Amino acid sequence: MDFKQTLQHNCCRTEELLQKICDSFAQNQVNDAIKYSLLDGGKRLRPSLVFETAKLFGINDENIERIAVAIEMIHTYSLIHDDLPCMDNDDFRRGKPSCHKKYGEDIAVLAGDGLLNLAMETLLGGKYSQNYFEAIKFIFECSGICGMIGGQAIDILPQKTNDFETLDFLTENKTAKLIMACVVSTAIYCGATNEQKEDLMVFAETFGKAFQVADDLLDAEIDQNLSYTNLLGIDGAKQQLQQYTQTALNSIAKFKNCDFFEQLCTFNISRDH
Amino acid sequence: MDFKQTLQHNCCRTEELLQKICDSFAQNQVNDAIKYSLLDGGKRLRPSLVFETAKLFGINDENIERIAVAIEMIHTYSLIHDDLPCMDNDDFRRGKPSCHKKYGEDIAVLAGDGLLNLAMETLLGGKYSQNYFEAIKFIFECSGICGMIGGQAIDILPQKTNDFETLDFLTENKTAKLIMACVVSTAIYCGATNEQKEDLMVFAETFGKAFQVADDLLDAEIDQNLSYTNLLGIDGAKQQLQQYTQTALNSIAKFKNCDFFEQLCTFNISRDH
Repeated sequence: MDFKQTLQHNCCRTEELLQKICDSFAQNQVNDAIKYSLLDGGKRLRPSLVFETAKLFGINDENIERIAVAIEMIHTYSLIHDDLPCMDNDDFRRGKPSCHKKYGEDIAVLAGDGLLNLAMETLLGGKYSQNYFEAIKFIFECSGICGMIGGQAIDILPQKTNDFETLDFLTENKTAKLIMACVVSTAIYCGATNEQKEDLMVFAETFGKAFQVADDLLDAEIDQNLSYTNLLGIDGAKQQLQQYTQTALNSIAKFKNCDFFEQLCTFNISRDH
Repeated sequence: MDFKQTLQHNCCRTEELLQKICDSFAQNQVNDAIKYSLLDGGKRLRPSLVFETAKLFGINDENIERIAVAIEMIHTYSLIHDDLPCMDNDDFRRGKPSCHKKYGEDIAVLAGDGLLNLAMETLLGGKYSQNYFEAIKFIFECSGICGMIGGQAIDILPQKTNDFETLDFLTENKTAKLIMACVVSTAIYCGATNEQKEDLMVFAETFGKAFQVADDLLDAEIDQNLSYTNLLGIDGAKQQLQQYTQTALNSIAKFKNCDFFEQLCTFNISRDH
């Protein structure tokens, strides 16, 4: 399979797993809202990173599937709460009405809460081992007040400073930490050495940042906020993208069979949607 | 120590543990809001139930402390989100402005999310064992879409039916499940037998319901919603309280040194605040 086929295959695998979980739900509006947001046809990049990291270690089991879908649940809950009127107040998400526009704010708050809790339940339903326990711990460190939520806590400040240090902190926490959760928690579960974990940590962090710079380049014309393009200009942002990508490529090159990750970096540089 | 001294002692122990966790926070408004809501001088009934259940099994260690404070975090996050304008729209909580009145809605949403995530991090920071893993799993089953959130999903329906079955479902999920999380997860961690777990499950479920009936009796004059007093009348609610309490007492009587739990049931019947 080439890169795009692999991505597509991982996406279908994720959809099937999520559909199976959603099929077991009791019928109520909060669960409907969870299904609506979870099964909305995202690219499933994060689950793909979990599956492909596991392949680096020759592992493919149910716990890996649980890590993949749990992180997608965390990602989805953060989007539902980000879209709320008191946050970014977004009426649309991937071309559909956002969760609160479709179901109301109260249900969207509960759907987000329910998804974060469901991520934990999904992980805790797996087969227990010390490595698995440590992997789960890493995931919630990445998504919590020292990770994703910590980034959002700074991002919502009206008076945040308009400098590279602040932007880099936001990108690291709001975007890169959940990418790190995918790659590094999987490596921990698969029994990676400390050196391997360190290399994958650097890969995930710098790829995560490169992903955000590429996003900013796509939105350069409309983005009024603190962004790489607004701060560095188009050319400066492109240089920053190259720099992060090179660091990511150097870190992943130490692994055999790392084609997917290399092609992902290339794809990220050239993506236009 | 008598019952009230024990309750007070457990409350102080909980405060100290929570204060220590809060002291390690980075300085930002979301973390300030978490501290504000977490250190607000509640009775700490849920941590007390954890400590006292552990005593039934002669256990008193750091993992027990983690279970105690994590469930208090889950309870607190649910109150912050319940108070939001799109939910119950409560301006006050325990005599202070509620979290969103003090910090704004956006920060209150993130503080609630952060607390649920912090509960998971707190638990995963503990010493790993199979029983501990199973205990954590039970906690999040109780707080999730088949537990507390599942109850809230029905409670926010404008057209919910005004009957005992619906009320009992709501009480079981919104109130009793988190009491069950305290007692039963601790029993699981402490290596309880299936029979012991079953007895404690019945105790926690019926005490949790008795607690809600007593709450309804206290609020009988102001409560316009579906409640035990509105549905059964004052005398009917008092009978229901006696009935749940008797079942709780019968279940706990099989344990040695269950004085705390018996006195808790007596206290609940007679409480006037």
